[in-house]
Amino acid sequence: MFIHETKVRVRYGETDQMGVVYYGNYALYYETGRVEALRSLGMTYREMEESGVQMPVLEMHCRYLAPALYDEYLTIRTIIREMPAARITFDFEVLSEQAQLINRGMVSLAFINTATNRPTRCPAKLAGLLKPFFN
Amino acid sequence: MFIHETKVRVRYGETDQMGVVYYGNYALYYETGRVEALRSLGMTYREMEESGVQMPVLEMHCRYLAPALYDEYLTIRTIIREMPAARITFDFEVLSEQAQLINRGMVSLAFINTATNRPTRCPAKLAGLLKPFFN
Amino acid sequence: MFIHETKVRVRYGETDQMGVVYYGNYALYYETGRVEALRSLGMTYREMEESGVQMPVLEMHCRYLAPALYDEYLTIRTIIREMPAARITFDFEVLSEQAQLINRGMVSLAFINTATNRPTRCPAKLAGLLKPFFN
Amino acid sequence: MFIHETKVRVRYGETDQMGVVYYGNYALYYETGRVEALRSLGMTYREMEESGVQMPVLEMHCRYLAPALYDEYLTIRTIIREMPAARITFDFEVLSEQAQLINRGMVSLAFINTATNRPTRCPAKLAGLLKPFFN
Repeated sequence: MFIHETKVRVRYGETDQMGVVYYGNYALYYETGRVEALRSLGMTYREMEESGVQMPVLEMHCRYLAPALYDEYLTIRTIIREMPAARITFDFEVLSEQAQLINRGMVSLAFINTATNRPTRCPAKLAGLLKPFFN
Repeated sequence: MFIHETKVRVRYGETDQMGVVYYGNYALYYETGRVEALRSLGMTYREMEESGVQMPVLEMHCRYLAPALYDEYLTIRTIIREMPAARITFDFEVLSEQAQLINRGMVSLAFINTATNRPTRCPAKLAGLLKPFFN
Repeated sequence: MFIHETKVRVRYGETDQMGVVYYGNYALYYETGRVEALRSLGMTYREMEESGVQMPVLEMHCRYLAPALYDEYLTIRTIIREMPAARITFDFEVLSEQAQLINRGMVSLAFINTATNRPTRCPAKLAGLLKPFFN
Repeated sequence: MFIHETKVRVRYGETDQMGVVYYGNYALYYETGRVEALRSLGMTYREMEESGVQMPVLEMHCRYLAPALYDEYLTIRTIIREMPAARITFDFEVLSEQAQLINRGMVSLAFINTATNRPTRCPAKLAGLLKPFFN
């Protein structure tokens, strides 16, 4: 299992008139979570795209347990529970400034060869970086 | 069962550099779907908020089957399968211009009394409007 | 001079916790205004991109006169005051449901040849469609 | 004159299919710039709202000099050139990772008393924090 934490500051433009973060904007926080998780491993998503692999999202699931507020400095915990093969699945836990669990999410992505536009396996570099966490 | 269809035109700002709609932006389309579904029944969400009931989202689920493209005139099909009680659940099907099913979603929302900030039941007006579809 | 009007319904996700449309979201409304203006002339922006011309934004100016509210059915008035040459400039007027002028904007865009990534002149087709309005 | 710099990482969801940051999303970066500028002075916008003053935007101006790319770690330079009175004006300079000036902006905001919904002067606390920079 691989776990990584990063921080996100809630922007005014991400709230709605209920005074909390709009439900669709968690997708942006999950994106930051997984991109920073990959960066901490030694790989950027930008680099992966440049090497000819894209990662379109196949599935997302979110549970909204409590609201996130404007200017909160949220913790995004990103978890990879299984070695990726044809797809990679990230679990997310969003914690408030008081370390309360306010949101849980899951995002599953494919690996696509940009040249052929067909599914491919997890790139060797990423598999190598993740392998030490799954023994 | 209640079914409603509405149309959404994909904006440039809703695409990302993969050349398709960003995965987080379907939440906006689902919002349009359910708001227009309620309007077709004779009730606006604005009116519900003004009457003292808010509907925070409890859960969202999305499956991305095929990409949506810039300027596509998507069909958002909104389905209510069960009479709402403490919560209301909407299912969504997003169809491309060629009527291909490209995305499936589910959003579940609570009814909250704005004054007390506590859960309440589905407002009588909405329940009355939906009842004819669930006999 | 060329004038076109289209309608935009304010989404919940476009409001912020001040209870009005977030100031950055008018850019999306201006985009809808100019895209629908072009469509009404007989040309889509999608078609222009496919023909090898992109239109990056050079400049934007917005004046916020009064707030736009959730679920308002806004009128976006798009105005082209001069025949485009190396760039095209759109003026915008956003009207509330009560026909009050609530926002004024200006967006200026270049024409870029996608293959060479260099500036080009206004495509002949667009120039031909606009010409009748500038005599 | 008061100058402050902060950093913003470009999200995938902030790009569009031209492969660069969508022109409307700079408003979010400017927001981060001014909010972090205020925080560095010893005041949060959240605190200002809680004290009964809101700051709606009156005007925005943007010049797009060069594109911002996915995953770029942009510098947002926020400049206050004049002591605020009935309004406060921020100038912005956005710098690429190579320290190239890629965007210039200006945002002007009012001070509104939330209770009366009427204009008010710059709150004394903020004026006091800014005064040392304008002698």
